Amino acid sequence: MFREKIKVLDCTVRDGGLINNHDFDTRFVREVYKALSAAGVDYMEVGYKNSKRLFSPKEFGKWKFCDDEEIKKVTDGIASKTKISVMVDVDRVDVDDVVPCPESPVDMIRVASYVKDIDKAIFLVNHFADKGYETTVNIMAISRALDNELNEALRQLENESKAKVIYIVDSFGALYQETTEFLIKKAKSILKTKEVGMHGHNNQQLAFGNTIEAIIHDANYVDGTVYGIGRAAGNCPLELILGFLKNPKFDIRPVLELISKEFIPLREKIEWGYIIPYAITGMLDEHPRAAMALRKSEKKENYREFFDSLIAEIEE
Amino acid sequence: MFREKIKVLDCTVRDGGLINNHDFDTRFVREVYKALSAAGVDYMEVGYKNSKRLFSPKEFGKWKFCDDEEIKKVTDGIASKTKISVMVDVDRVDVDDVVPCPESPVDMIRVASYVKDIDKAIFLVNHFADKGYETTVNIMAISRALDNELNEALRQLENESKAKVIYIVDSFGALYQETTEFLIKKAKSILKTKEVGMHGHNNQQLAFGNTIEAIIHDANYVDGTVYGIGRAAGNCPLELILGFLKNPKFDIRPVLELISKEFIPLREKIEWGYIIPYAITGMLDEHPRAAMALRKSEKKENYREFFDSLIAEIEE
Repeated sequence: MFREKIKVLDCTVRDGGLINNHDFDTRFVREVYKALSAAGVDYMEVGYKNSKRLFSPKEFGKWKFCDDEEIKKVTDGIASKTKISVMVDVDRVDVDDVVPCPESPVDMIRVASYVKDIDKAIFLVNHFADKGYETTVNIMAISRALDNELNEALRQLENESKAKVIYIVDSFGALYQETTEFLIKKAKSILKTKEVGMHGHNNQQLAFGNTIEAIIHDANYVDGTVYGIGRAAGNCPLELILGFLKNPKFDIRPVLELISKEFIPLREKIEWGYIIPYAITGMLDEHPRAAMALRKSEKKENYREFFDSLIAEIEE
Repeated sequence: MFREKIKVLDCTVRDGGLINNHDFDTRFVREVYKALSAAGVDYMEVGYKNSKRLFSPKEFGKWKFCDDEEIKKVTDGIASKTKISVMVDVDRVDVDDVVPCPESPVDMIRVASYVKDIDKAIFLVNHFADKGYETTVNIMAISRALDNELNEALRQLENESKAKVIYIVDSFGALYQETTEFLIKKAKSILKTKEVGMHGHNNQQLAFGNTIEAIIHDANYVDGTVYGIGRAAGNCPLELILGFLKNPKFDIRPVLELISKEFIPLREKIEWGYIIPYAITGMLDEHPRAAMALRKSEKKENYREFFDSLIAEIEE
């Protein structure tokens, strides 16, 4: 697939941070930045911009806050065209903490929002756009969105927001290709002046397949993470996206080397990927939290019992 | 997805046997058969029917030969509607070893063939059909088939063979959805009197996505293996297929239990799945043999070097 407009965003450190309390050290994040820069990846997302009034820096690593000086320690001295992105959650950010874009190492701010919070998301995204940032709204848990509410949210985003890109986020890893096609086509038909993006989760090994499906139907922004790292089942593996896209600006080799050196050892310490309880929550279109709790218990491999308990809960 | 005609074939023991010299013990194979029977899976493939003149039973496990008495030790005493399948390779089977179907525990024989060997495959499949077996021809390495030769092979299979099903086999795990769609549509358009099947390999985490794609375009026979076991990157995980298909005859729970009890411990002993060198051979549409050799060497995690060496070989 070669379409020059396609942009690849790596959210390794942001989504991977959900497994380790956002506590990657600066050396590791620099290695990721170096490799992504050499690979020609368009954006690197380093974490969340959370309010320190709501979350204590004593309890969480630095990538839950993404102070500008921490980002500069990562990027300083590395030649790169890779832009830096941070994510904010509705109701968790102090907008006054965010300085105007020209004074910051951050290029893009992505606002994560459920359909029900879309008015708040529009307020935030317009605020950041006015400060000079590239912006996106990422609609989370879209497999649970009611059609009429999603339509309304997309119309609002088209008419009222300054966001450059609207992302479809398959938070539960529940989408199959047919629904991905349906959602991307819907978004494209309503969002006449914006780009559409795809963020998959890999519970059913469909993050990459659904990303290809989104690209086929004209999504031009796609998210991936190195070796698929991310909460629970993880994300669409960046290396597979780079293998698929034929734009000569991309070079998969620095990412292959990064996996060898950093991610094979890291995977021994923290867990993500194709693990049956996450596949089960994906099939059932459920949040992975029950499966994450299971994986920390002695019953971590009792898949049948977990399946039955989840079905019983849903049917209650 | 609910389409009553869809049949699921499990090839856990056959394709898994390619990693362990076909040396599963009878107890293990009985556990698989029990679980698949309880899950309502339509077919279970237990191995290859190879000539003992060509391969020594001293060097290979029993599922490289699939003697009828070994199969009976697996199936005896277990209530089941699951039919038994064996695979044969062109030029590796003694047809006289195969007794007529009514005298055998085997219900289906699948002939694996490259496009170039299609005449031999047709001879074999007609021979087995005349002995009363259900039959298929599985066209291997289809990502390398030239279009005109594939068209001719499909026309021959339609006009000259008694096979019930013709399978598209993505041996190298190289197909993306668009090519899967192209191949399945082509097969359906030529094979007016036969069913079409899909057998994926999981090098790029697309075995399940491509299987769904094949189902969308009217393939009615799909292959899977428990926990995706199989040579190199392995196959389409059976549990994901069962989670996707909505036919109430299927029950995923016995398969979940089987994975807990048998496949989690087995995966500690033998390797398959998403492993970067297999992803690389998939991207490059190459046989996994170089990656399999790498995984047995000290350089098993040197992905960048492996990528460069493979590219250099291809360009030579």
